[in-house]
Amino acid sequence: MLSAKAKNITPYTAGEQPQDGVYIKLNTNENPYPPVPEIYQCLAGADFSNLRLYPDPNNVKLRQAIAQKEGVGVDNIFVGNSSDEVLALAFLTLFEKTKGALLFPDITYSFYKVWADLYDIPYKTLPLDDSYKIRVKDYLDKGSKCGIIFANPNAPTSILLERDAIESILKANKSIPVVVDEAYIEFAEKNASSVPLIKKYKNLIVVKTFSKSHSLAGARVGYAVGDKVAIDGLFRIKDCFNSYPLDRICADIATIAITASDYYNDITAKIISTRNKTADKLAKIGYTVLPSSANFLFVSHPKFSGTDIYNYLKKNKILVRVWDKPRLSEYARITIGTETDMNELCKRLEMFK
Amino acid sequence: MLSAKAKNITPYTAGEQPQDGVYIKLNTNENPYPPVPEIYQCLAGADFSNLRLYPDPNNVKLRQAIAQKEGVGVDNIFVGNSSDEVLALAFLTLFEKTKGALLFPDITYSFYKVWADLYDIPYKTLPLDDSYKIRVKDYLDKGSKCGIIFANPNAPTSILLERDAIESILKANKSIPVVVDEAYIEFAEKNASSVPLIKKYKNLIVVKTFSKSHSLAGARVGYAVGDKVAIDGLFRIKDCFNSYPLDRICADIATIAITASDYYNDITAKIISTRNKTADKLAKIGYTVLPSSANFLFVSHPKFSGTDIYNYLKKNKILVRVWDKPRLSEYARITIGTETDMNELCKRLEMFK
Repeated sequence: MLSAKAKNITPYTAGEQPQDGVYIKLNTNENPYPPVPEIYQCLAGADFSNLRLYPDPNNVKLRQAIAQKEGVGVDNIFVGNSSDEVLALAFLTLFEKTKGALLFPDITYSFYKVWADLYDIPYKTLPLDDSYKIRVKDYLDKGSKCGIIFANPNAPTSILLERDAIESILKANKSIPVVVDEAYIEFAEKNASSVPLIKKYKNLIVVKTFSKSHSLAGARVGYAVGDKVAIDGLFRIKDCFNSYPLDRICADIATIAITASDYYNDITAKIISTRNKTADKLAKIGYTVLPSSANFLFVSHPKFSGTDIYNYLKKNKILVRVWDKPRLSEYARITIGTETDMNELCKRLEMFK
Repeated sequence: MLSAKAKNITPYTAGEQPQDGVYIKLNTNENPYPPVPEIYQCLAGADFSNLRLYPDPNNVKLRQAIAQKEGVGVDNIFVGNSSDEVLALAFLTLFEKTKGALLFPDITYSFYKVWADLYDIPYKTLPLDDSYKIRVKDYLDKGSKCGIIFANPNAPTSILLERDAIESILKANKSIPVVVDEAYIEFAEKNASSVPLIKKYKNLIVVKTFSKSHSLAGARVGYAVGDKVAIDGLFRIKDCFNSYPLDRICADIATIAITASDYYNDITAKIISTRNKTADKLAKIGYTVLPSSANFLFVSHPKFSGTDIYNYLKKNKILVRVWDKPRLSEYARITIGTETDMNELCKRLEMFK
């Protein structure tokens, strides 16, 4: 009763989502702070009889607010039901499978491989270097390819690729789309985002999410920034899949969040500060911590595997995430929680001997 | 910069969604009554700090509530971000393109053709009969096919196919999936739904939406009912597209709505009563009205085309929907609004001469 695709494909595995709240949850890079309080007021005061009506299929209000924040035109913004949906639609919209393989790092967001499989897009993975950084030169050769995608900062490594390096990739690949997945960019140094490059490089599409820095993983909103041609293409494919991917409530919530810069700058600064302190503490007790530009740390220990760390912490009511794959199995990925969460984590790990 | 698919496909065209509220909006089959009031209380009182967390990727609570209403197990329920998303994922999950063409009526929900194009599924349309009914015998032959899909009641015709007829289609096609899209079923006679047949026919998948009868077009929630194998397949493909298609708020709203039978039975009865009165009135002033089991009427007039009716009503601040296609261009589709809306409509049409 199923298509061959549905029978044979290996789906993406999301992090555990226990619904009972007994863990300190440091496994899916959620923000430890609540979203901006104006959201509560908007919801409590809204006219919910409007839920009987379809949303605006073009999400003009939300896209205007995002465009203003990003310093681009509303025609340069596409929105969707999470950055995962935006990326899924981008695979169909941008990557022409007959042109060659899609390139991405061997260690990166593991959903890229799944979307390629889903849409039968050939792909080639390029190894990170020994320090887990993207090897830029591998992306510059003239071989046939249908596109490039990577996360920046990369996941689960937490490492940022500098804008100069990204520009060299864009310059060498002007005839194919280059998608930069900036789910974690707000936790990197200022001006790390590639968005300002979209004016110069029509082949650049930057994807962002409200889930991490805007503390709205539960609201499912993401967006893409790019040249009008790519954005129009995303709208065409969206209108071949689901005309109204954003409900009225979450579109309003996201519009409020994207304009609340002061609140979000503040909680982002807190997370960065906690991250840096936690990285120092873990280094002092013998962990190797990759240099993080994200809201998580990627850590290893000379004596313990990632799974050892995971199991020990889970017994102690802390959830982190690990992967049973070459070069990843030594590591555990630990989301940055509150100061209290991270003090607790460090205390427990100090006792793990 | 776009794939051949993105360049060449013809997207689905949704009904107009003017955002300014100057029209009596009878063009996209929205419910004229607000959703159940408990939703307001739930939203005003909810702990919105939870929006920082991902939703339950399996939507167990909502699926349990739907399962109870439908009289099936929770394993028989899949949920998604609108029935359009559920249907889009069902195309990928269920229809094996190498088996033959997907069959659907020539006049039906026009998104079916778009999803088939999106996923390169070959299809064959079968003409409705002279009275705009589905010709059941066309679906019974032994030729190769990869699936069958139709809306029941059909759209935009409003006509219901009886359960015996559906059972004969299921019986003759046991080796391929048959999807019955019941977006409008709550407006049909009691016991018209095919859901009770899922226990007997493992090839049946029924898709429903909260948009119409549950007055939640703005919340984007739909679901599928079927055998566990098909439902598991839908979850696999969902997990290859977007792990969390329902945000926390709309999942909660839908859970409240699906349990509020008294309220919804009441507004559904009002809509049916208004529909029947409106159909009688329009017939009296010279319109042909197809026998409707939905929350809309499909009407024609000996002197005016669909576009004539549309243009006249739009000038008079009423929006309806028309299609510029063979056998459809004579008709206008008119959503059932409140009694006041429909009195206004009849008054205006009486003056159209």
